[in-house]
Amino acid sequence: MEMLLDNIIEPTLLLNEDICRANIARMTEKATNNGLPLRPHFKTHQSHVVGSWFREAGIDRIAVSSFRMAQYFAQDGWKDITVAFPTNYREIKRINELAKVVQLNVVVENRETLAFLEQYLRSEVQAFIKADIGYHRTGLGPDKFDQVDELIEWLSNSSKLHFKGFLAHAGHSYGANGLEEIKDIHEKSLANLALFKERYQSGFPQIEYSAGDTPTCSRMSTFGVATEMRPGNFVFYDLSQCLIGSCEIENIAVAMACPVVAIHKERSEIVLYGGGVHFSKDRKTHPNGETFYGLVVDWQDNGWESSWEHAYIKSLSQEHGIVKATQKLLKTVKVGDILGVLPIHSCMNANLMKQYLSFNGQSIGMMAYP
Amino acid sequence: MEMLLDNIIEPTLLLNEDICRANIARMTEKATNNGLPLRPHFKTHQSHVVGSWFREAGIDRIAVSSFRMAQYFAQDGWKDITVAFPTNYREIKRINELAKVVQLNVVVENRETLAFLEQYLRSEVQAFIKADIGYHRTGLGPDKFDQVDELIEWLSNSSKLHFKGFLAHAGHSYGANGLEEIKDIHEKSLANLALFKERYQSGFPQIEYSAGDTPTCSRMSTFGVATEMRPGNFVFYDLSQCLIGSCEIENIAVAMACPVVAIHKERSEIVLYGGGVHFSKDRKTHPNGETFYGLVVDWQDNGWESSWEHAYIKSLSQEHGIVKATQKLLKTVKVGDILGVLPIHSCMNANLMKQYLSFNGQSIGMMAYP
Repeated sequence: MEMLLDNIIEPTLLLNEDICRANIARMTEKATNNGLPLRPHFKTHQSHVVGSWFREAGIDRIAVSSFRMAQYFAQDGWKDITVAFPTNYREIKRINELAKVVQLNVVVENRETLAFLEQYLRSEVQAFIKADIGYHRTGLGPDKFDQVDELIEWLSNSSKLHFKGFLAHAGHSYGANGLEEIKDIHEKSLANLALFKERYQSGFPQIEYSAGDTPTCSRMSTFGVATEMRPGNFVFYDLSQCLIGSCEIENIAVAMACPVVAIHKERSEIVLYGGGVHFSKDRKTHPNGETFYGLVVDWQDNGWESSWEHAYIKSLSQEHGIVKATQKLLKTVKVGDILGVLPIHSCMNANLMKQYLSFNGQSIGMMAYP
Repeated sequence: MEMLLDNIIEPTLLLNEDICRANIARMTEKATNNGLPLRPHFKTHQSHVVGSWFREAGIDRIAVSSFRMAQYFAQDGWKDITVAFPTNYREIKRINELAKVVQLNVVVENRETLAFLEQYLRSEVQAFIKADIGYHRTGLGPDKFDQVDELIEWLSNSSKLHFKGFLAHAGHSYGANGLEEIKDIHEKSLANLALFKERYQSGFPQIEYSAGDTPTCSRMSTFGVATEMRPGNFVFYDLSQCLIGSCEIENIAVAMACPVVAIHKERSEIVLYGGGVHFSKDRKTHPNGETFYGLVVDWQDNGWESSWEHAYIKSLSQEHGIVKATQKLLKTVKVGDILGVLPIHSCMNANLMKQYLSFNGQSIGMMAYP
């Protein structure tokens, strides 16, 4: 790592390809073992290169969180793309461009959107109805089957929109604390999804039940009525996922490399060049009870290692990260060093950094914005 | 506004030039009234165009938060630039490039950085010593005058680094709640800064005492020993600043325009296309006691208006914003509408959006990253 770090001059997002490919392989294997296709959500990495690692693992379908992101991956040859977000019909131009060149699967949950799409779509698209299986962020729950019925009837009469099935996301698993809570949410969510199948199976025996979030897909072994797995964050994982219980610290595939610009020994603090514009302001409660924004690593010959005993970021402003240092770190750290820090939330972190640095010193591009 | 909103297809950051220019004029006038130069911090807007509005108001010196940002503004003709961040000497190449073409003012607080700069600088730069006047994020406080003495001695013997003065930031004013707390922090901070002047005035009668943060610069009338004012956020303000007491809601110059993608009347919620990748996850406590992430506006013919009685964003995920709607809003809102939302923290919001839309429909660029 030494040579790699020597060339870093500013906050940089390192990507450990080995860990990342192992995360991909593990999830792919689990899907295969369940006889389910894996449709990874690409909003975490937003990168053609990381996408290619999935392709090499046999993946041929993806989920994204915006039509813009769908365009970015369509440009790289992905042909079966689900935009796992309630369709924003104002993007009809993009939707039409995409629908011409890929199998585009959109998500709907209201008639206004269906009516607009029916009028302005120029190619056929597959439509998932958003099923609320307990997260209550969006979608229709089993208590709204009357509305679901209406949407399905609408879809059945549509010339351009084809009813593909139900898309669910048990996002409340992100609030879980440990295996038991993940299991509890998983079982209840799948029970809710099963209510959809119970009601619609006879009329629509071929439809899909797409589900998946990183905590349940990482820790559970069976997936009930789901017909595909759709997790995303697992490609990198992060400290949030560790605290939920989805992964171990060793599974985190990205780390920020940040220059040390000041050291305040008397209060055991290190000032990093690396703030909210690099990490995002996502924060969690450290096992010691304090709020924190990242965990410091020890560099190894070929990567890094960390533990909850390590120093951590205790506060972030726009460009500053303040590390609460251990005595051990204070003894060796010098101004000008590069400290490595595991992120709280790799999706937001990557989205801000807009590129990765691989261990062989190559820059790995991401979708540009805007 | 109607025509402007009609053309918006995805989350967009609107900039009200009139409010922005009024914010600039008000702060410029206050500095003039105090006989102090205003050195606005450009990290909030990161835009050549907004910078030009400052130039038109007579501003000729700026602060930025990184050497990269200094380069961006140097390209636009700014000639006197303070990088108000502890110098990251790993960027020596950029520092040398900048020092050749602008008056570059850097911030130092330790000997390691001075030693490195002395060895590798190829042009002269002005050096501020970072004074800690109570924020305790970084810098040297009055209890460390021995270290300050050492740095000054070091600077006095340097051929390339010239001791320019002390740079202070009472960033703890961001934790203030109302005028009395702002005033208290202001007085204590300036008293600390005065200790620096007391000690160093006779030896260095010409040096500067640069200070400034948006809460104190917005609400206080006099600035003690400070020789320049250095606030930044006031160019746009935001809800954080309203809650601190720095400004009124009417002074906020930016608002996000977000498409409505779903409405859940039974729980008074509206789902926006607009999440953490647009707003950032900055959050505050609403006057009603709840955590919130943005305040919904009413569109007006020529802008927007809002109040604490309005709907607000109660939660954010990567692309979703969930609005806790008022009954009034629920009666009129439709899927496909554009809702306007004032941000919690305009610096982080702008940094994510990377461009503004002006009321005349023009896109206003920002510094690209990376």
